[in-house]
Parts: sequence; C-alpha cells; structure tokens
Amino acid sequence: MSLSALVLAGGSGTRFWPASRRLRPKQFLALDGDRSMLQATVDRLHPLVPSDRVWISTTTALAPHVAEQLPEIDPARILIEPAGRNTAPAIAWSIASMPPAVREGAIAVLPSDHRIADPASFRDTLREAGEEAERADRVIALGVVPRHAETGFGYLETREPVREGGGLRAVARFTEKPDLQTAERFLASGRHLWNAGMFVFRGTRVLALLERHAPELARGIQALRREPERVDELYRALPSISIDYALMEKLDDLATLPLDCGWDDLGSWDALAAVLPHDTSGNAARGGAVVVDGEGNLTYSDEGTIAVLGLSDLVVVRSGDAVLVAPRSAAQDVRRIVDALAASSRERLL
Amino acid sequence: MSLSALVLAGGSGTRFWPASRRLRPKQFLALDGDRSMLQATVDRLHPLVPSDRVWISTTTALAPHVAEQLPEIDPARILIEPAGRNTAPAIAWSIASMPPAVREGAIAVLPSDHRIADPASFRDTLREAGEEAERADRVIALGVVPRHAETGFGYLETREPVREGGGLRAVARFTEKPDLQTAERFLASGRHLWNAGMFVFRGTRVLALLERHAPELARGIQALRREPERVDELYRALPSISIDYALMEKLDDLATLPLDCGWDDLGSWDALAAVLPHDTSGNAARGGAVVVDGEGNLTYSDEGTIAVLGLSDLVVVRSGDAVLVAPRSAAQDVRRIVDALAASSRERLL
Repeated sequence: MSLSALVLAGGSGTRFWPASRRLRPKQFLALDGDRSMLQATVDRLHPLVPSDRVWISTTTALAPHVAEQLPEIDPARILIEPAGRNTAPAIAWSIASMPPAVREGAIAVLPSDHRIADPASFRDTLREAGEEAERADRVIALGVVPRHAETGFGYLETREPVREGGGLRAVARFTEKPDLQTAERFLASGRHLWNAGMFVFRGTRVLALLERHAPELARGIQALRREPERVDELYRALPSISIDYALMEKLDDLATLPLDCGWDDLGSWDALAAVLPHDTSGNAARGGAVVVDGEGNLTYSDEGTIAVLGLSDLVVVRSGDAVLVAPRSAAQDVRRIVDALAASSRERLL
Repeated sequence: MSLSALVLAGGSGTRFWPASRRLRPKQFLALDGDRSMLQATVDRLHPLVPSDRVWISTTTALAPHVAEQLPEIDPARILIEPAGRNTAPAIAWSIASMPPAVREGAIAVLPSDHRIADPASFRDTLREAGEEAERADRVIALGVVPRHAETGFGYLETREPVREGGGLRAVARFTEKPDLQTAERFLASGRHLWNAGMFVFRGTRVLALLERHAPELARGIQALRREPERVDELYRALPSISIDYALMEKLDDLATLPLDCGWDDLGSWDALAAVLPHDTSGNAARGGAVVVDGEGNLTYSDEGTIAVLGLSDLVVVRSGDAVLVAPRSAAQDVRRIVDALAASSRERLL
C-alpha cells in the first residue's frame, strides 16, 4: 500500500477567539501542547505516512503560516485554494493537482483541527482503511466511536460488518446533528459513529465519482486544469459545498471503519478545559494563573499571569492584544464578541 | 501668607493590583485621566502653591519615579525616607529637612492618592486653612464633608464653629472606622467629617508639638539632624506610627475646616468604576472594551481590548503582564491575590 495524506488546513473559525484570529485559525494553535494542531496532525502520521507523502490544502492567506509551521513539507506539496469554497472543491482541486502516481494510490483526507489522544491506534485504523481503499477501490469514512450523546456532530449509521469479524461496515446513511433524545438513542444503538470528516480513497476513484455525483464541480475542476492561468477566477466560480454533501452522502457503497483513538474536536474553550490538567479545585490553566476562591475555571494566557478572585466556571483568555472573559457555559457563543467587534469596525482584533 | 505643601508620596498598597505594583503604587497611576494621582495632587495646588513651594516625601525606591513624573519639582525638594516608617516620621523628618524660612511658614500636608473633582473649591479651603494656621499658629485638619455613611474611614467629631459664621471648628475627637449604624448617625449629625489625612500647620509648631506628644520620635529626628551620615540606620530606628496617632489625636486644640470639593479616595477598583464614564448598560471602561450581554462591569486595560460575554458586575483589569478578574463586590479583597502570588514565590508580579 502507498498511502498519502491530504491535510485540510484552510479552515477558519471564531470559537477560539482571541487565540484564534482570521490569519491564525484554530489549526495553527498549540492549545494543549507544544505543537499546533496542524503540526500534530502531520506528526501523528509518522511513520505510516512520512512527510514526503503529506500534502496540505490551504488558502492563499494561510499558506505562509503553513510553510512556517511545517518546514518538513516541500512547498510544492502545499496546495493553494485561491479562495475558501468549502471542502469539496478543496479536495477535488488538490487531488487533480497531484502527480498521477499519487492520485492512483490511496489518499487519506484529514482535517487539521482535531486532537487525537492515541496516535498509534489512529495509525492502525488509518492503515487498515488505506488497504481497504486500495484493495476494493472503495471510499472509506473513519467514523469515531461515540463516547457521549453529542448533539453537535453528524452521525454515520452503519450496517452489519462487511466481513464477519472485520471492522469494515457499510454506511446506511448520514444523519444531521440530532436532538438529545436521538443522540442518546444513537449512542445506545452501537451502530452510529461520529462523522469526523476523515476519508480514505484512491484519488482517481473520487475524481470519477465526482464526475457522476457533482458534475458541475467536476467540470469546474477540468476547466481549471485546462486553463491554469485563470485559476483565481475559475476557482471562485466553483460551487461552495462540502465533500459530505457533494459526494459522501450520495454514495451507496460508502464504507466506514470505527476509529477509537481518543478523538476530540476541541470545539470550544469549554472543551479545551476538559483536556487540560486541573488543580484540586478543577481549575485548568495554560500559562500563568492564580485562582483564589474559585472552581472550574479555565485560564489561558500566551503571556503573563491571569488572576481570578471569587469566581467559578469562567473562561479567561489573554492572547495578544485581547482578553476574553465568559462563563464556560457561553463558550460556544464567542462568535457574538467577534460579531460585535466587526460591527464596531475593530477589524484588527479579528 | 506663604503656604508650602508637603505631598506624601511614599505609600504602598495592593488594592489596585495589577495596575499598581510595589514599584508603581496607586499615586503613580492615571486611573481616571491623563495625569497620575500624584501629578494631579501637585497640579491642583496651582496657583495657590506654585511648584517651587511644593515638597515631596517619598521612599528611596520610589524617588526616581517621583522625579520622572514631576520634572517641575527641583530634586532638592524630593525628600527621601530611607525606609517606610508611616506618616509621623515622614512628616517630621521632611519638616526638619526644610530650610528655616519654609519651616516657619504654613505647610499643607497632603496625601497623593486621592481624587478631587473641584480643585478651585479645594484651593479656597486650603487658603483659608493656611491663613488660620499662620494667624493663630494652630494645627488645622481638612475634614471632608461626608456624602454617605462610609464605614471605611475615620471621622472627626466637631464642636460648634470657633467663630460665628466662620467655617473653622474645634475637633472634639477622632473616631475609628465606625459600624454602619454609627456611620449613619454620624452622617445625620452634621457634626462629623471624614478624616482625609490632610493637615495645615506651621512647621515649627508641629515640631514643637511632637517634642511634647511624641518625644521618642522627636529625639530620633534630632539625632538624624546631628548625624546625617547615619540617616539610613537612624531612620529605621524611628517608631513606625501615623501622624494621627503620634500627634493629631492628642491635641486638645486641633481645629478643622470642612472640605466640600468632590473628594474621593478611590479605595478600590469598585470605587473607580463609579467615577469612570458608563455605557447605557452601566459598563465603565478605560481602554478598549466590548461587552455583550453584561451590565455594570468595569474593564480597565493599559493595552488592547477586553471582551466580556454574558457576565455582569465584574472588574476585569489587564495591566502589564497580569490580568485580574473579580466580582466588583470582592474588589476590596485583591490583596488575597497578591498574598497568593507572594506565597507561591511569584514576587515579580507584585
């Protein structure tokens, strides 16, 4: 098997503001260690996928930052989206840009903003997926074994294992983010996995499937290949659509391998609090902190010390020129601060 | 009348941490304007006491900062306490260090960490006090007309006016910080004034009174004058005592002039919130701020922006290498953070 990886590093988001900014989205942050989430994504592929078989898809604005964080990646393998058009165009254009020999082999598409506690277990599953993808020329989704009734993710509903005793299962359907009752039923069923946006397939297979299921996108990619000098203009004309909607949900032979490796999408400051070390009062800290009369706080500072007196269950972040204070329960709403700053023309803080 | 001023700028404190630090106590901060409280103290004496009749008492450690903030004060008039020994030694040693012509005249002793909203009214009262002090060779306390039943201050209980129609009153007694019920009675009586630590007297008069009422201190000061080369050693041997305890409370002819000039001691972050401008939700800010879903917060930043989401009645301060978050109601307890930092050997933050 010759497995390559395509790491998606063009995403943006506001949920880790002020640590994340427009030009420093979540994947560039070292939220829980010394390596950024992007660096950790590449690190954990070794030795299964060495860095000379790792490709990065990112945007024009973020490419310099990618190159800086990943000096081991040949700049020729940092593929540029001229504009953010969601994952389907990014993946299709990246695969179309790879040399034929790479495109013929198995490729793992991996987001770069997730945490994985057990990289060895992750690589085992990824190897198995690569082998299945090459052997049967199938598209494999890595489905995370759910640990709680999460309402924030989509789920893959699976059928019986494809082969007795094997991990591979057919995907019956994608489901949208469920309500709590449905999520609890999914968790209890043992047949539902979280859709983590990780897929393994032969590149040529996906390009062929896109021609059938997403012809407008496929035609756009062909036009890009014919007229590379018009890439900026033509790329912006591509439909902005996710790979799930454009392709994965339409496949009747999508398979999945359950992934049980301590995956965590770290969706908010609150989620980060859960994985950082705590003091005896449940206060989690990164950077200098002192808490007097308070429990369950998350303090995160890129410089200096944060002091909390007489308050509990807060997120307090100091990053660069901004400080954020919010209840942990409102950490999902940080976008409201970002919106307020944008509305008051304080763009430089975004 | 030839009125001089002795501004006490050697104090320390923790209530405005992290804006205040050991080497930058409250008097050096511009909490509510462009000028520090020390600078404002000197500014508001003009034109009654021009800067060439202003003397500053401070400590060795703080003297460079005083000189930097007050370039208009001749360094010869910045008097050094070799160590902090409270106000009685600082005042006695400062007066003893002044030229005889200054010492013979009226001197206003003024703390440097108070806010005064109406400087013209303050100067009117100060002028009257200087005239009374010279004319009758009396010690005059400036007593602040109370605006609420404050339990955090000492009070001066006054008798009838010394002269009909005049402001000058004899002080019957000093009272310690009262409980709330007593403070309410004081406020209603019309005969109680806040002791703000501001006194006016002829220097020679106070030195003579100290010989009678604080003979140990007076002998210590005489020794300092005889052996100026041993000043460091001898000053440290002086009793550490306030001018109130050492002298003022013992005088049976202390007089007071009521001072009604918008005096505010800004005793905590909470008190500062009350004097800073507010938005329509009662959020007071100095420096950049954005508050979403919150009321009554104080944000104070020497750099960058503070964002508060879904929280009310907090103090959030960013100053230098530290961030403080506390409820406004706990702002008086900031010392607990300072103590915790000291206990964990993080002295550089103090």
